[in-house]
Amino acid sequence: MAEETIKLYDGERIDRLGYQGLQIIQDPQKFKFTMDAFLLAAFIEPRSRQRILDLGTGGGVLPLLIAGQKGGAAVERIVGIEIQPELALMAERSVTLNGLGNKITILPGDLRNLPEELKPNSFDYVIANPPFFPVAKGVISENTALATAKFEICCNLDDVIKAASRMVKGNGKVALIYPADRLTDLLMILQKHHLTPKRLRLIYPRVKNGSNLVLVEGRPGAKGGLDILPALVVYGEDGNYTPEMQAIFNGT
Amino acid sequence: MAEETIKLYDGERIDRLGYQGLQIIQDPQKFKFTMDAFLLAAFIEPRSRQRILDLGTGGGVLPLLIAGQKGGAAVERIVGIEIQPELALMAERSVTLNGLGNKITILPGDLRNLPEELKPNSFDYVIANPPFFPVAKGVISENTALATAKFEICCNLDDVIKAASRMVKGNGKVALIYPADRLTDLLMILQKHHLTPKRLRLIYPRVKNGSNLVLVEGRPGAKGGLDILPALVVYGEDGNYTPEMQAIFNGT
Repeated sequence: MAEETIKLYDGERIDRLGYQGLQIIQDPQKFKFTMDAFLLAAFIEPRSRQRILDLGTGGGVLPLLIAGQKGGAAVERIVGIEIQPELALMAERSVTLNGLGNKITILPGDLRNLPEELKPNSFDYVIANPPFFPVAKGVISENTALATAKFEICCNLDDVIKAASRMVKGNGKVALIYPADRLTDLLMILQKHHLTPKRLRLIYPRVKNGSNLVLVEGRPGAKGGLDILPALVVYGEDGNYTPEMQAIFNGT
Repeated sequence: MAEETIKLYDGERIDRLGYQGLQIIQDPQKFKFTMDAFLLAAFIEPRSRQRILDLGTGGGVLPLLIAGQKGGAAVERIVGIEIQPELALMAERSVTLNGLGNKITILPGDLRNLPEELKPNSFDYVIANPPFFPVAKGVISENTALATAKFEICCNLDDVIKAASRMVKGNGKVALIYPADRLTDLLMILQKHHLTPKRLRLIYPRVKNGSNLVLVEGRPGAKGGLDILPALVVYGEDGNYTPEMQAIFNGT
């Protein structure tokens, strides 16, 4: 569907998503995608005919990136749940804008009380880029939409992982991106919900920096150790993105 | 004391430890130091007049390295506990060989039942390079001394961290090096014993490899997040040690 047929509301604009000609509707007051979505989309390894659930999809950036990736076209369906109705509608319009309605379903809903049409243990991958900041920690922006995406207002990490554990298939995977300084919580809460951490990748902004973000994948009831992947460095010494990071932005 | 006055038993030899002219008695059948000891010695930040306890000191490599480091000379005392009497005696002879009897005390003893002369909550730093391999996992070498150092025969990770938690001061630190594939266990067992993980460093053999070892520091009852330090890469693309790793071996 051509972009001129998509209705844009005040404050909204259409931005390029960087690969496969993907576009996304954004409103800087409500939702803007970040690098985190690209990192998580590149971390997962979806296979053909798989079903993927994105918990807290916001403007739908993760479903769009996955559908646009090499291999993503073969995925059966990507469902994005979003608690904020206006964001869910924005995500749905972005799906239409990209002609991906045959791959992506956006559902308004609360991950603490998932819509009945979603059957437990029915997804090969459950993914999330959860709100990062405890509510008590910072001054919460007055803008409710943006605050809900960033702060643990509507859900905390335990809620997200509990929902993921319920929706993932027994042989499926749960993948998240989360701040590095909360790695202990992340691993412990995964274990608590019987999702054994099996793959971990640390993101380092520069070679000489500590890690600020982690990617983790858990599998229900899995045995054995954790595989820690090579360090992912975002910027090279010249200040430009590293070749690997550039490839992630290009979806290759 | 000159090295010719130190008695060496069958199979023993004197090796250089790489910095400050340090030497160590080793017997390849019983104990050989590894890179892990250098990594842990470089990770900790002892200050003057501090007391350090090394749980399972083997041939005494960690106490020797710390005493020989820049700053190590100002440490009040380093106590190494070793369950195997013949290794404890070997470590003691290495202390004498280096003239470090005024800094280092080697005690034969079981960390599950620590010698009474060690007072609880009396060490600024408790460190350990614990046995790595679950007993059930591999074929255990017939050589008991070497097997005890590598396999969880005399203690497992929980025993080590429990002892560390008991011996560390309320404002002290506990630091360990452990295989990366057991990171989840490591963080969970630290938490279980009220040692909040506060610093973590991942070791990557090469830039393109996953991590095989982690260094972690916990503090009793500490609040707040985990600081993940820059990645430590051991070998450069030319196959030689990286400048940072070379500096660690040089104790600078």
